[in-house]
Amino acid sequence: MEAKKTIKNVVMLGAGSVATHLALALQMHGYHVSQVYSRTSDSAKILSQRTSSGFITDLQHLDTEADLYIIALKDSVVECLIKKLFVKGIVVHTSGTLPMNILENMSRHYGVFYPLQTFSRSRPIRFDHIPICLEASDNDTLEALQQVAATLSDKIYMMDSGQRQYIHLAAVFSCNFSNFMYVAAAEVLRDHQISFDILIPLIREFFDKVTMMDPWEAQTGPAIREDRSIIAKQLELLQDYPEFREIYRQITEKIIERKKLESKS
Amino acid sequence: MEAKKTIKNVVMLGAGSVATHLALALQMHGYHVSQVYSRTSDSAKILSQRTSSGFITDLQHLDTEADLYIIALKDSVVECLIKKLFVKGIVVHTSGTLPMNILENMSRHYGVFYPLQTFSRSRPIRFDHIPICLEASDNDTLEALQQVAATLSDKIYMMDSGQRQYIHLAAVFSCNFSNFMYVAAAEVLRDHQISFDILIPLIREFFDKVTMMDPWEAQTGPAIREDRSIIAKQLELLQDYPEFREIYRQITEKIIERKKLESKS
Repeated sequence: MEAKKTIKNVVMLGAGSVATHLALALQMHGYHVSQVYSRTSDSAKILSQRTSSGFITDLQHLDTEADLYIIALKDSVVECLIKKLFVKGIVVHTSGTLPMNILENMSRHYGVFYPLQTFSRSRPIRFDHIPICLEASDNDTLEALQQVAATLSDKIYMMDSGQRQYIHLAAVFSCNFSNFMYVAAAEVLRDHQISFDILIPLIREFFDKVTMMDPWEAQTGPAIREDRSIIAKQLELLQDYPEFREIYRQITEKIIERKKLESKS
Repeated sequence: MEAKKTIKNVVMLGAGSVATHLALALQMHGYHVSQVYSRTSDSAKILSQRTSSGFITDLQHLDTEADLYIIALKDSVVECLIKKLFVKGIVVHTSGTLPMNILENMSRHYGVFYPLQTFSRSRPIRFDHIPICLEASDNDTLEALQQVAATLSDKIYMMDSGQRQYIHLAAVFSCNFSNFMYVAAAEVLRDHQISFDILIPLIREFFDKVTMMDPWEAQTGPAIREDRSIIAKQLELLQDYPEFREIYRQITEKIIERKKLESKS
């Protein structure tokens, strides 16, 4: 391939939620999704119908003439593909964790196209402001990927594989783990006939704060005040919730420790 | 006092952030803040100036003619007030944790006025949609408090002391603890020269999700997928962050356990 050539035809490897949202967004912006690959034909069929593309469940039938191959599969499956795929076009994966070089035997031109967002197949999402982290084997490939990314989003970041790993880690903390704190809150409230909705304004305020100040400066609550009396009462309330009780205890300790370390320095 | 009487004059006991925001909001809505009490005269002075009210640091000079006394002090300080205060007007505290009955010797009419929000003295806040949880010793007092609350907010909840404790606990999880997850994310990113801003769209999406679906249904990430390979890699990345590593390990375990329990049931 000529990396300078503008990307037109795209093969999507995968038919999960990232693959689906990405394929639909690319199609909407004028790219031609020529083929969808998935090991389970049902999901590939659905996505190929939605993108009017062919679908394959066997890489032997891969369209070898595409400009871009997007691998949006589980990390472990990507690793399985390594020896089975070799193409002329650019190959990218969409993983936050896998290094770029895992693709080096699949094409002379490869890279990473990592959209930093959570996708549910059922929930439509606009790509406009979704950060897309790019990495590429060479400048021409980077340019080609930048062109594609820029049609989808106004937030493009160049990132090496090391940095991308930390972004993924930070996303696990700030989204998956904080969501689990909502899980705890929702369960405690449900058991006492209180709607979770009562918390929404408070959660919104914390979200607003984090967009404009350092999270540690925004830290409030019994732990950072080291209010042992409230902490003891809340641990008592959690006696019927052993899983959340351990989490409460540990996070509270960490906040207290951090505060102490800070006041020493 | 006649509880049926509409509340006009308010004494604020406390000059911290809850006291400040509440006093200013009440004044804005036509209530007269007659006096501010605080043991430290500096903060009381500032608040009394902003509300054009008198300030006292000694309860001996308390205005005994006010309709409503709002105790917005630390829980431990509220407990110290018990034997020192007795008035004709309604007495309320603003605590999520303290039971209402702690006030029973201060007045014949007492209650709780608990605004479920996080307040920073420096950040202005609108009360319009802040949930206010009310509890009262009798119906007349409840009516009087409802009238005050309704001038501030459109979200009023009747709540007994038991439920209020669980709301406070849920708030600690969903706000203070999830904020600490942002602290972890911010530190990891900062150490790798990545701006926390890159996470904002993702955090916003999780916030949006939680307003419309059960948090457990919205749970994503390596833990709920039980992706041991990513979990191992991320624990490795956390080797320089022992405090966050322990939290990562514990929350991940709890999510995996919960998923297993659920699939069994």
